Amino acid sequence: MSDIQQYLDVLSGLDFKGMYNSDFLHTWDKTTDELKALYATAAALRNLRERNISSKIFDSGLAVSLFRDNSTRTRFSFSKASNLLGLELQDLDEKKSQIAHGETVRETATMISFMADVIGIRDDMYIGKGDAYMKEVSESVQQAYADGVLDHRPTLISLQSDSDHPTQSSADMLYLIKEFGGLENLKGKKVAVTWAYSPSYGKPLSCPQSLISLLPRFGMDVTLAHPEGYDLMPEVVERAKGYAAENGTSFKQVNTMAEAFEGADIVIPKSWAPYVGMEKRTNLYAEGDDAGIAALEKELLAQNATHQDWCSTTELMAKTANGQDTIFMHPLPADISGVSCEHGEVMADVFDMHRDGMYKEASYKPYAIAAMMFLQKVADPVATLKALEDAGTPRWYQA
Amino acid sequence: MSDIQQYLDVLSGLDFKGMYNSDFLHTWDKTTDELKALYATAAALRNLRERNISSKIFDSGLAVSLFRDNSTRTRFSFSKASNLLGLELQDLDEKKSQIAHGETVRETATMISFMADVIGIRDDMYIGKGDAYMKEVSESVQQAYADGVLDHRPTLISLQSDSDHPTQSSADMLYLIKEFGGLENLKGKKVAVTWAYSPSYGKPLSCPQSLISLLPRFGMDVTLAHPEGYDLMPEVVERAKGYAAENGTSFKQVNTMAEAFEGADIVIPKSWAPYVGMEKRTNLYAEGDDAGIAALEKELLAQNATHQDWCSTTELMAKTANGQDTIFMHPLPADISGVSCEHGEVMADVFDMHRDGMYKEASYKPYAIAAMMFLQKVADPVATLKALEDAGTPRWYQA
Amino acid sequence: MSDIQQYLDVLSGLDFKGMYNSDFLHTWDKTTDELKALYATAAALRNLRERNISSKIFDSGLAVSLFRDNSTRTRFSFSKASNLLGLELQDLDEKKSQIAHGETVRETATMISFMADVIGIRDDMYIGKGDAYMKEVSESVQQAYADGVLDHRPTLISLQSDSDHPTQSSADMLYLIKEFGGLENLKGKKVAVTWAYSPSYGKPLSCPQSLISLLPRFGMDVTLAHPEGYDLMPEVVERAKGYAAENGTSFKQVNTMAEAFEGADIVIPKSWAPYVGMEKRTNLYAEGDDAGIAALEKELLAQNATHQDWCSTTELMAKTANGQDTIFMHPLPADISGVSCEHGEVMADVFDMHRDGMYKEASYKPYAIAAMMFLQKVADPVATLKALEDAGTPRWYQA
Repeated sequence: MSDIQQYLDVLSGLDFKGMYNSDFLHTWDKTTDELKALYATAAALRNLRERNISSKIFDSGLAVSLFRDNSTRTRFSFSKASNLLGLELQDLDEKKSQIAHGETVRETATMISFMADVIGIRDDMYIGKGDAYMKEVSESVQQAYADGVLDHRPTLISLQSDSDHPTQSSADMLYLIKEFGGLENLKGKKVAVTWAYSPSYGKPLSCPQSLISLLPRFGMDVTLAHPEGYDLMPEVVERAKGYAAENGTSFKQVNTMAEAFEGADIVIPKSWAPYVGMEKRTNLYAEGDDAGIAALEKELLAQNATHQDWCSTTELMAKTANGQDTIFMHPLPADISGVSCEHGEVMADVFDMHRDGMYKEASYKPYAIAAMMFLQKVADPVATLKALEDAGTPRWYQA
Repeated sequence: MSDIQQYLDVLSGLDFKGMYNSDFLHTWDKTTDELKALYATAAALRNLRERNISSKIFDSGLAVSLFRDNSTRTRFSFSKASNLLGLELQDLDEKKSQIAHGETVRETATMISFMADVIGIRDDMYIGKGDAYMKEVSESVQQAYADGVLDHRPTLISLQSDSDHPTQSSADMLYLIKEFGGLENLKGKKVAVTWAYSPSYGKPLSCPQSLISLLPRFGMDVTLAHPEGYDLMPEVVERAKGYAAENGTSFKQVNTMAEAFEGADIVIPKSWAPYVGMEKRTNLYAEGDDAGIAALEKELLAQNATHQDWCSTTELMAKTANGQDTIFMHPLPADISGVSCEHGEVMADVFDMHRDGMYKEASYKPYAIAAMMFLQKVADPVATLKALEDAGTPRWYQA
Repeated sequence: MSDIQQYLDVLSGLDFKGMYNSDFLHTWDKTTDELKALYATAAALRNLRERNISSKIFDSGLAVSLFRDNSTRTRFSFSKASNLLGLELQDLDEKKSQIAHGETVRETATMISFMADVIGIRDDMYIGKGDAYMKEVSESVQQAYADGVLDHRPTLISLQSDSDHPTQSSADMLYLIKEFGGLENLKGKKVAVTWAYSPSYGKPLSCPQSLISLLPRFGMDVTLAHPEGYDLMPEVVERAKGYAAENGTSFKQVNTMAEAFEGADIVIPKSWAPYVGMEKRTNLYAEGDDAGIAALEKELLAQNATHQDWCSTTELMAKTANGQDTIFMHPLPADISGVSCEHGEVMADVFDMHRDGMYKEASYKPYAIAAMMFLQKVADPVATLKALEDAGTPRWYQA
């Protein structure tokens, strides 16, 4: 903690040139070296901040955010990351905007991009739509740059799409690296990524998907558990299997929480919507079929209600590798039985025991985002981090 | 006005170590020395700004605001204070946030606090609720810091609760200190804090309460006037009496504006809701009793309407110590007879005569807030103010 | 592009002292020298930015925006301009604000102005209202400064009123200067400012008005075309005629797009509402006559619908000076036939051919606004720009 040299040493041994001027839309777009560079950079930025050293690399500049779904944690994390590097946040509120009926994505993307350095987008509600939207924004700003309309290309960061939630899974990795004392110590750890009951419906699939497609790449054994009918997107499950095979780890699917918890070093139980139901919903929205949507909601809630036993209890925790001390993760907010609802994802006593851990997990998200920005905007991150360390400008000045 | 030495001299003679890393929720939580330090620091910051010297102590950092009631003046004041010290404002809009049904205050407080340096909260609508909410936020961030979840503790500033409005009353004090040429000159001044008629209902009690519990501490004689039934919170009135007794000043209660205005050096007439009615409203809201709330509103408006004679007129002003020149204060916006309503708190001619004074009064609020932030975030304010003065970095650069 | 000396040379030959500490509400309030200074300053700021040199002149400070109509392009442009100079944006959202019923403009203007350096206002919906509002804000802050309430006077920038849209027309001029390789090359160029069909109604008159009253001042021959009944404000048309006469250029009015396009070097087709209809609407709003407004809307849409042939086609473009290569401008978003509506202002193929040009046109707006701010807040712009160039502080730091 006395300096950032250890992180610079790690970075010096990695090939991550491809991140400069690129987007961060999915972890699976990135090489393992690039992800390792992300974790080392996030740790270095956190270290600088905790030692009150400024990591401002922008004297002025804008980070544009576009949230097509409500958000507190990610909104604040993006804002904090931007501020840490010297960018001012400018939120595009589609309701207050004169985005004309039929205005193309290409036009909106270009219009918000003059003088923008980074664009963060959350668009996670409709299967297939979030990824498509972000891809179109990315191509639009690339085109505008190529055409000489933009004098530089803002880079994109996905703040959650329908397929992946890379800022959340990166924060999760940073937390695990810290808890286990190093990335190499994650090898062979057993992780339960499991569905849990929630009295609400329609929670994004991208949370569990981001985990199963990332953890195997660092040697973790993943067990995915959900009731019948709660499948994830098939291509993401295939990707998870592929990563597991490549990295000599196991990827298993089971049908009960108990099986997944058995001997697990880390448990991550959270509700999500059935893929098939979400595809239906996407189509019904496209058709403007409100009655169909209402019927679907009723049906999905009834389907959920048959699985109220999918709740994390001390009994289930007792089955894990370290019993009640086993690491329990959740991106929050959780549905807590007896606190936020009658029956939820987790019992209040389990939540209370692991509250600090989950809050610490959340504390890494601003740094994960800041590291994405840093690696996208800085050609030589090692030299630049070193220069920040050497300058030692206090973030918070006191005589 | 040539430098800030006079304020540094004042600060050097005061004991205000307790303010560092603490919250500012009520003036009555603070010692008299601490309040004096607040006024001197606010004056020093204003002096620096007026001489175009930067008082930015944060290279990056966030000030989080949470307004549970509409606001222009305080919202802008908080934003200005943050900016003056180098913090970027991040507003938590509860409507746009994914604050889950049943999400605990503890969780929201922690989630917004990563990388936050200051949190400002307005929660003034329901008796007993605002103070309780702020206390819970304060304890939550303290807990998160103790548990290692936060790497430093953001400090809180009340931007108005149900009991106190410390940023307003501090701005009022700064204005009075300036008008009377020094804090010591306020001793023995007679102040009328009086109710006034308004065609709306439910105005917060915290405005008059913040005055009666602060002014006696600096030797002012306070007369509180209101019609029968418009009592303030009993514990605050007791506190006011206690301060008056401690400081050898008088605290009187009367039932007419005329009595309060008689011989007053300063008059502060403003409408507020009856305490009993507000307690009822708080309970009706808790019960979700909309019909009860509508009936109460009707009843309270009718009660108000019987007191339309509680309006500041030139006749009443003539009774004061300096007639039409007596200092007339209001936190604004005021209900002005014939301008914003048919009958209001003050006649248009009286308002016009005192408009500049009230606008100047308002101009101190950003400095009051900035001084609270400064004293909470800086271990050695004298040395740091001196260093800012010596550096002389222009706030607004021109070659 | 290697330095800003050419712009400093231009500025040195101009008299624009009047801009310091003044507002920018209409281009017609400004001398030709002042407008030339605006264009040179905008170009210098863009040059600095493109060479990664900081033009931050504010260490802290606020730019307040007030949008009384939806906006994306102008909102983001104002935000970017503020950020470029070091000001933080603070938006006054009238819906979230405690602007009391009947609160005077004078009071609101003063309350938002403590510590504000610039105020940007869009108020373009009602004939006569936007200009009047901005004038009142300007006089209010001047009064507050004179009365000692404000320690300095924030300057105003119109982000569109009912009569003029100076930030748009300034961006248009910057684009034309660039495209034609210099301000002097605009002399004698033929410009078609023409009405176009839109399936919506009530589009502001200030766009075409800002063009016809500005372009003749730099020697351009303007032809204004619209169907009968779509007159602009008579005083603005008179002003356009006056400028044309003064500058030895022609100002013609015709009744078909074809006549206007004939031989034009630049075409700017865009819909607007008939002046008479907008005056009626303003009065109906003032009277709160909702039925009258609905009837008027129906009537105006029907009137529009008789002019669907006012659409930019390749056939019309063929009549211009350079055929399909002739410069085609639009402030965006445009109503594009077959894209955003069935019949609109422009055919999709014409729009596509000129898309890059219109996007480039838009890219100048942040610099136009930044230059207005710079000239209003800097006493010696030449020396200050030179000092920024010499300091060469990187906007975006990389080791």
